[in-house]
Amino acid sequence: MYNSSICSFMFSTNILQPRMVIARLSCTLKTHQNVRIGHCTKVPRNVNMEKLQHGYLFPEIERHELMHLEMYPHANVIDLGIGDTTQPLPTIVTSSMVDFVHGLSTATGYKGYGPEQGEKALRKAISVTFYKDLGIKPSEVFVSDGAQCDITRLQLLMGPNLKIAVQDPSFPAYIDSSVIIGQAGKFVDKAGKYKNIEYMTCGPQSDFFPDLPTISRTELIFFNSPNNPTGHAATRKQLEQLVDFAKVNGSIIIFDSAYSAYITDDSPKSIYEIPGAREVAIEVSSFSKFAGFTGVRLGWTVVPEELLYSNGFPVVHDFNRIMCTCFNGASNIAQAGGLACLSPEGLRAMQTLVDYYMENARILVDALTSLGLTVYGGKNAPYVWVHFPGSKSWNVFAEILEKTHIITVPGSGFGPGGEEYIRISAFGQRDSIIEASKRLKYLIYQEQN
Amino acid sequence: MYNSSICSFMFSTNILQPRMVIARLSCTLKTHQNVRIGHCTKVPRNVNMEKLQHGYLFPEIERHELMHLEMYPHANVIDLGIGDTTQPLPTIVTSSMVDFVHGLSTATGYKGYGPEQGEKALRKAISVTFYKDLGIKPSEVFVSDGAQCDITRLQLLMGPNLKIAVQDPSFPAYIDSSVIIGQAGKFVDKAGKYKNIEYMTCGPQSDFFPDLPTISRTELIFFNSPNNPTGHAATRKQLEQLVDFAKVNGSIIIFDSAYSAYITDDSPKSIYEIPGAREVAIEVSSFSKFAGFTGVRLGWTVVPEELLYSNGFPVVHDFNRIMCTCFNGASNIAQAGGLACLSPEGLRAMQTLVDYYMENARILVDALTSLGLTVYGGKNAPYVWVHFPGSKSWNVFAEILEKTHIITVPGSGFGPGGEEYIRISAFGQRDSIIEASKRLKYLIYQEQN
Repeated sequence: MYNSSICSFMFSTNILQPRMVIARLSCTLKTHQNVRIGHCTKVPRNVNMEKLQHGYLFPEIERHELMHLEMYPHANVIDLGIGDTTQPLPTIVTSSMVDFVHGLSTATGYKGYGPEQGEKALRKAISVTFYKDLGIKPSEVFVSDGAQCDITRLQLLMGPNLKIAVQDPSFPAYIDSSVIIGQAGKFVDKAGKYKNIEYMTCGPQSDFFPDLPTISRTELIFFNSPNNPTGHAATRKQLEQLVDFAKVNGSIIIFDSAYSAYITDDSPKSIYEIPGAREVAIEVSSFSKFAGFTGVRLGWTVVPEELLYSNGFPVVHDFNRIMCTCFNGASNIAQAGGLACLSPEGLRAMQTLVDYYMENARILVDALTSLGLTVYGGKNAPYVWVHFPGSKSWNVFAEILEKTHIITVPGSGFGPGGEEYIRISAFGQRDSIIEASKRLKYLIYQEQN
Repeated sequence: MYNSSICSFMFSTNILQPRMVIARLSCTLKTHQNVRIGHCTKVPRNVNMEKLQHGYLFPEIERHELMHLEMYPHANVIDLGIGDTTQPLPTIVTSSMVDFVHGLSTATGYKGYGPEQGEKALRKAISVTFYKDLGIKPSEVFVSDGAQCDITRLQLLMGPNLKIAVQDPSFPAYIDSSVIIGQAGKFVDKAGKYKNIEYMTCGPQSDFFPDLPTISRTELIFFNSPNNPTGHAATRKQLEQLVDFAKVNGSIIIFDSAYSAYITDDSPKSIYEIPGAREVAIEVSSFSKFAGFTGVRLGWTVVPEELLYSNGFPVVHDFNRIMCTCFNGASNIAQAGGLACLSPEGLRAMQTLVDYYMENARILVDALTSLGLTVYGGKNAPYVWVHFPGSKSWNVFAEILEKTHIITVPGSGFGPGGEEYIRISAFGQRDSIIEASKRLKYLIYQEQN
């Protein structure tokens, strides 16, 4: 959290309404209301799909960007919306993938199907690199094509008859995948929440941690640290409380550590740093933000052998079955790249990437704080979380876009707890970050005077 | 179908029982019966996962292979089990991926997240290459990490409240994903079938096509042509009947054309060759067997805009939502390779690969037919489907493995309709195929005399 006074700044009302934006957008896939005329099958639409409220957040943001570009074809749009990496991959990683690909055109180097759970060497390297001294075995590590995909596979594993809890605000895939699998219940418009989902408010008033005594027991608890979007990394004490809470309630934590490489203080980088977590937690993680693999696609999930269902059956057996049946292994080329990331030279190169984005975050935080805005994040995560008290976050998003040509993400896209906030990604090019800081300063200065 | 008389050949009873094999197998994940002692969460095991009968077929086969290698460490085991490609990728494909990977380490060539639905150029190339004159637009093509993964995503799309029909025998992922999503109902031991799944017998007596007037209406019909495991490509007339059947019943066909590149006669390569199919069918396909991308991972699914739910809502909108929420795009490196496969030079190279495997199939078919065995497949698909009347297919599998060190797949792994059969994959190296043919000939000659 950055030391800035509560800002009474308000945007003018001269803004683009998001609904108008969507209505004007030309795209091949039409909005939810559309039905077509023609042969109808007798297959009913999945009631779970009907319950989804909007398009998935990030494609929605992209649609806004495209529409803005249509209106302002010559604008120099700066995209600090979707947390998309921009820096080239280190050559140690690309050379390793190049060697592997060359091999694929030789009799000795060709590889077909690999193990669905990932190559042995990579599973081992992940366990050694990220879970040294935490007792995670390679056989408990499942390599995948990314954390978002694993979240859906974990929902498939768990099935529709469970309740989940999520941080509010949080990465929207937890809720959306829960709706798709059928756990979420009805959407209550007024609250902006699904009836059967427990929203754990994680705002600055409680140091971005849920007030656990007020939280209902659920079977699953999705917990993301460092949190996307707030950037808060849970402290050791907070995570100890969380593990205790799960143990007492017989819950399973699904801990998303996709941004753990960005932690700069002594906050735990893995839930397994907390004693007892092996009996209550699954960990999902990714090479996307750690190594710039957003397009290459590589992630992993850890399911400890000690994690048991109520009947004593180990969760890992069922997750293995899901990976073998619903997935066919991550691309072997991506896996070769992932292995190179985890070599000593690779790890040094990864740190350079992480440092670059964190310097971006510092620049953004400094610029916004200097204007008296209340700014969170940017210390243990490459996201900056900015408070605009009294404003609707979609309105703030739209005005920033209209007046500065900068794409951000409206906080309410991450849950009702994100209202009044916007998230700014620090994953840009340095010059874009500097230019964006200037534009934001200018806009806010104008609004304030 | 090959012209050979019904063979009365029977194996001796001196075989390895599959249960014994599994019991002796050392592996990190234990069998279903295991429960552990320790902290149990209060999360019940997903009832759908409990309904799955065995480990997924192909990992089970791999486990048998590993166990066999433990017992016979010096055996020259020939793997004609899992349909895994063995031939190097053409250099036009690998050079293209190498260029792309080199680009990833440059400021101009680096790419982060791509569209979840796949790169525009690849969607267009797929529509032009495979659906020329069939009216499939690029926006109806969704690029993925493979057909097996898309099958699960299609089940997520459709939800638990539907009934499916499958060919019997067929690729086991249709049934297993149906069980996981909760459509399948109880498993009835005696029949070897799930209660709520409609098994459409597709044996030689009906030219490998269901007797449609006897088939109950279901919402979804999984149909794989050329069929894995039988190798039968449905004729145009058969597919016309299938589309009619779906239209009358208001069903949706999920047509799996993963082996269509292997069709040598005038059987349709896509369901969209059949008039009216756009209103009733989704098509799933893959670069795995067409281009040797089993480990690289690339596939696609076509959802036509005209395909509507009973309320008129287009299926494609919901599938787009699934792809955006539960998937994050196929690896961009794999997509660069896929694009190269579809260039004129790439397509010629693909044909060479296909021809190689089909020559393997011919060698296997000739060897087995010469012994008087009844052999199907191998003409429009790289699978050979061999009948052993009166024998249990797991027993045949085990005896072939024990006596010839050749891995096959027991037909019953593909459903009760596969009993008495084994599937032999033609995706091997040529010298292995010739050697395997010799060993099989010798074994069968011995058994017959």
